[in-house]
Amino acid sequence: IIWYLSSPVYVHNPHLDALKDDILYHFSLGTGSHNLPAMFGDVKFVCVGGSPWRMKSFTEFIAAELAMEDPKSGYPNICAGTDRYAMYKVGPVLSVSHGMGIPSIAIMLHELIKLLHHAHCTDVTIIRIGTSGGIGLEPGTVVVTKQSVDATFLPKFEQVILGKTVVRSTDLDQSLAQELLQCSKGLNQFETVIGNTMCTLDFYEGQARLDGAFCSYTEAEKQEYLLKAKEAGVCNIEMESSVFAAMCKLSGLQGKNNGLTRPESFFV
Amino acid sequence: IIWYLSSPVYVHNPHLDALKDDILYHFSLGTGSHNLPAMFGDVKFVCVGGSPWRMKSFTEFIAAELAMEDPKSGYPNICAGTDRYAMYKVGPVLSVSHGMGIPSIAIMLHELIKLLHHAHCTDVTIIRIGTSGGIGLEPGTVVVTKQSVDATFLPKFEQVILGKTVVRSTDLDQSLAQELLQCSKGLNQFETVIGNTMCTLDFYEGQARLDGAFCSYTEAEKQEYLLKAKEAGVCNIEMESSVFAAMCKLSGLQGKNNGLTRPESFFV
Repeated sequence: IIWYLSSPVYVHNPHLDALKDDILYHFSLGTGSHNLPAMFGDVKFVCVGGSPWRMKSFTEFIAAELAMEDPKSGYPNICAGTDRYAMYKVGPVLSVSHGMGIPSIAIMLHELIKLLHHAHCTDVTIIRIGTSGGIGLEPGTVVVTKQSVDATFLPKFEQVILGKTVVRSTDLDQSLAQELLQCSKGLNQFETVIGNTMCTLDFYEGQARLDGAFCSYTEAEKQEYLLKAKEAGVCNIEMESSVFAAMCKLSGLQGKNNGLTRPESFFV
Repeated sequence: IIWYLSSPVYVHNPHLDALKDDILYHFSLGTGSHNLPAMFGDVKFVCVGGSPWRMKSFTEFIAAELAMEDPKSGYPNICAGTDRYAMYKVGPVLSVSHGMGIPSIAIMLHELIKLLHHAHCTDVTIIRIGTSGGIGLEPGTVVVTKQSVDATFLPKFEQVILGKTVVRSTDLDQSLAQELLQCSKGLNQFETVIGNTMCTLDFYEGQARLDGAFCSYTEAEKQEYLLKAKEAGVCNIEMESSVFAAMCKLSGLQGKNNGLTRPESFFV
């Protein structure tokens, strides 16, 4: 299903070479304390999602799919030294939790990209598997994200650097999204669509919900906003896709010929 | 130390009255499934922090301070049905984790404010106890936040509602911050200062760090930015204070005469 040219994971930071020990604080791992190439050198797939419990279940599922179950050892949390994120590995598949929201997944992705770089990983595919709210879809539908858009339906992520805003692209690979859609059609186990995913900074007011602690709009205004989103091609709403797309693109996890970043969002 | 007028916790959402069962999704609690007034009606203090492990340790510390230890029952996680947040209670003190970043703490605060409202709590003081990076301070110094400022050193929080940006105030109560400083002087166990806290959306590029996966600035540019922050009164940098201040103010957890919101940030 997946094809690519051999490609390393890029960091873009000249300061890293000067570090004796690069500490991945929020993983409780580091180049001085851990042999990252030995631990992670064979990783080819990284699947990330918000909930630590779900990423553990996912690892158990993948182990069964790959017939790599090990009932004796179980799947220890590689990041057991911290409660910030949880990480599991089975064969070439690494599974990492990222908490909720852009800042939380961004911290994880900085350290994940450095981890894959230090481990000399090549040809790595990264997939976000997350929950989301759907617009005009049956619950249970899987949305393969074509493009991540912001709350004004524009495909951009704004990164603040030294107090100045830099705009980054949130494009994902179109042919790969189509490929993934075909996979799902072949499986024929759940409805799958391709569409835009809106990424917000807030779950309640930011997603036009009526049940937060604060709500200053009417049900009609909510519907009007969601209708505009739908007209802009938005199929679902979540809280991490924009920075995920932007950072994966920058790090070479998604490139011209090996564009392999594809969040799947499960409608809730 | 703390004085106030009797004051309820306010929600500002006319839609909530129409809900038969208000589900606090990310706490795995709800008005239909739980007797919130019985469980939480006596809460007078809420202490929040990023890490679930730390909030459990804090609860054990407070139990000892209040001589309310219960070695038999321990301190069960009230949100054991979910892995999104952890919550502990001892006497009138509720302790809740909020993960990392503005979106993550905002989800928690929406549901916490509704919880306190449904439980008919009054005169509630909420304190954020978090780690932060200090500017020109000895490690270990405690910063009592006077005002939370953004990456351009302005005291505001931008909330996006239906695609439009609304600016909210991040003021905290000045007299209370002074009171807290005096408390610390009385204890004389660690250095404590009052100052502004900068709240960013990112830990690496957003806080001028040199050790992320991406870094496009020099060490000199980093120092220049941090110097400007210091000149604007910024003592430390973290990732949750702005929305914490804004939401506490809106909900009446901080008011004119009972302004009791005061994040303490531990310099790391």
